Amino acid sequence: MVPGDAPVLALTCGEPAGIGPELAVMLAADGVPAARLVAVGDPALLDERAAMLGLRVAIHPFAPGEPPPAPRRGVLPVWPVALRAPSHPGRLDPANAGHVLETLNVAIDACRAGRAAGMVTAPLHKGVILDAGHVGFTGHTEYLRDACGVEEVVMMLATDSALHAREAGWRGETTLRVALATTHLPLREVADAITVPRLERLLRILHADLQRWFGITAPRIAVCGLNPHAGEGGHLGREELDVILPALEGLRAEGLALDGPLAADTLFTPRHLEGVDAVLAMYHDQGLPVLKYAGFGRAANITLGLPLVRTSVDHGTALDLAGTGRADLGSLRVAVALAAEMAGRGI
Amino acid sequence: MVPGDAPVLALTCGEPAGIGPELAVMLAADGVPAARLVAVGDPALLDERAAMLGLRVAIHPFAPGEPPPAPRRGVLPVWPVALRAPSHPGRLDPANAGHVLETLNVAIDACRAGRAAGMVTAPLHKGVILDAGHVGFTGHTEYLRDACGVEEVVMMLATDSALHAREAGWRGETTLRVALATTHLPLREVADAITVPRLERLLRILHADLQRWFGITAPRIAVCGLNPHAGEGGHLGREELDVILPALEGLRAEGLALDGPLAADTLFTPRHLEGVDAVLAMYHDQGLPVLKYAGFGRAANITLGLPLVRTSVDHGTALDLAGTGRADLGSLRVAVALAAEMAGRGI
Repeated sequence: MVPGDAPVLALTCGEPAGIGPELAVMLAADGVPAARLVAVGDPALLDERAAMLGLRVAIHPFAPGEPPPAPRRGVLPVWPVALRAPSHPGRLDPANAGHVLETLNVAIDACRAGRAAGMVTAPLHKGVILDAGHVGFTGHTEYLRDACGVEEVVMMLATDSALHAREAGWRGETTLRVALATTHLPLREVADAITVPRLERLLRILHADLQRWFGITAPRIAVCGLNPHAGEGGHLGREELDVILPALEGLRAEGLALDGPLAADTLFTPRHLEGVDAVLAMYHDQGLPVLKYAGFGRAANITLGLPLVRTSVDHGTALDLAGTGRADLGSLRVAVALAAEMAGRGI
Repeated sequence: MVPGDAPVLALTCGEPAGIGPELAVMLAADGVPAARLVAVGDPALLDERAAMLGLRVAIHPFAPGEPPPAPRRGVLPVWPVALRAPSHPGRLDPANAGHVLETLNVAIDACRAGRAAGMVTAPLHKGVILDAGHVGFTGHTEYLRDACGVEEVVMMLATDSALHAREAGWRGETTLRVALATTHLPLREVADAITVPRLERLLRILHADLQRWFGITAPRIAVCGLNPHAGEGGHLGREELDVILPALEGLRAEGLALDGPLAADTLFTPRHLEGVDAVLAMYHDQGLPVLKYAGFGRAANITLGLPLVRTSVDHGTALDLAGTGRADLGSLRVAVALAAEMAGRGI
């Protein structure tokens, strides 16, 4: 049973040829304990995917202005956004790029108008949106940043790694949260992108949002070095001494609890993670391989710095799996649970 | 009981002020099932550390020319290399840098003369060796490379992650092996260091040594991209297209089984790791955080490309723990077990 006062979450179905629509249907069939979910997508497409997978899910379209139906397992309420062209599993069509972006706009509007307490996004396909002529589109995160009119957002992944941690005999904090100082940047551009002002902005957002959305009164953040062994006192690069350390010192003076810069290869062990609420990695492949290994199938992506709650699955459109019913619900479950938790706190 | 024909392994005790000497003593007290271990270090120091820890271990010095004593729990055979100055736990002294290097030379000589089937190294302290005037010393791996007169070696870490993998419901391959295309290099120098000839040399060594030392007839190697998402078709960097792919294609034509270049953040999941014998990461912090997380306390370092077997612990001198008995034997046990396994195969 979903309580009637559970938060309403808008779930955008993402790329129609991918696994997004069927994940929405699968989730409705299984039931969502913590939230009243409203899919944002094409009702006929959702019906079609339910039939394809042999799932008995009633697709219930209603207008954004109307109250959502009472939450019930096997019923998927939908804010309808029509496809622009028919969609087939696995076959990308630029004609539907506008449809995908419209689902985002509907969800953003619902959050801003208070009709939804947060949004969860299924994967979209960047390439096909670019092919459709939406020049400069670089992904959900940046689209939301611009739509919300904020200057900077922080990408953070979180996993419920409780199982792993318990079995490995770890004590203490069992949820791993990894935020990134740079995201989708070629490796050779990373070092120059790490600046004192950038680190200050990102760490302030991370600190504030861990308080606001996660209810952590005094967050403790572990910060990775940029270079191997965090530069080994300047022997393996000077960015730790010249950039990261000054940024951390300034923020410590403001009262932020920051460890580091620490060697990334030993940071993800109990000695360093104990009591740490989030890790700030300097770049994508420094932080995400370990996060995705630890949280295999149980990790989700969170955008911090927005005036609204937004979480996302940690995987792509999986075009090869679309329509087969073999897609894994794990990440979407975590994304929904996290959004519900955040929405319940951040009022 | 250790079989009389178990391989003799030389264990260099490393930095005398660190945890190396006491790890050797602790291991002798516990017993080593798979090898006849001979420590290389100062017998009086080992005696002292055994007493400090309250361990009843008989230190048994003998000359490299003599046959080693019959293996027995509680007895530590030692090829003696005298300290140059008294050593106290936690207090580095450049006067003993020469001692540390001499233990390496004794072990290398023993391997090359056939008196030992391989060597295992406890941690040394790079800084104090540099301070002692050994300009250009960059670590065990490079010292061994030069001492053996080879041009290139490959650093690989391996973990017995069987426990983790089983508990997380993974099937198939449970040992994670991660080799590095670059090691202790500032991050901003990494991209230029990845060249076609370098990748070819390293992958040939990795392939040949997985056959020779690990008994894998047809090794399969997964190769990481350099950039996030392996460059996403050139959108996030071109090194995958311009450097890594051409290198892999050339080697595939020679018969090597190579996957990739793959996105590092999703590579370390069952879908990609199943059937893979080793991963080649492009740089230190792309591969080692996940390896050390997965193999926490159960990982060891292996130098490939040498004419001898060499493994090492995956941790440092831990000066703060020296003399306390709180050092963890886990990594040394794995290093010894691996060296014994390799030495048994690579004849």
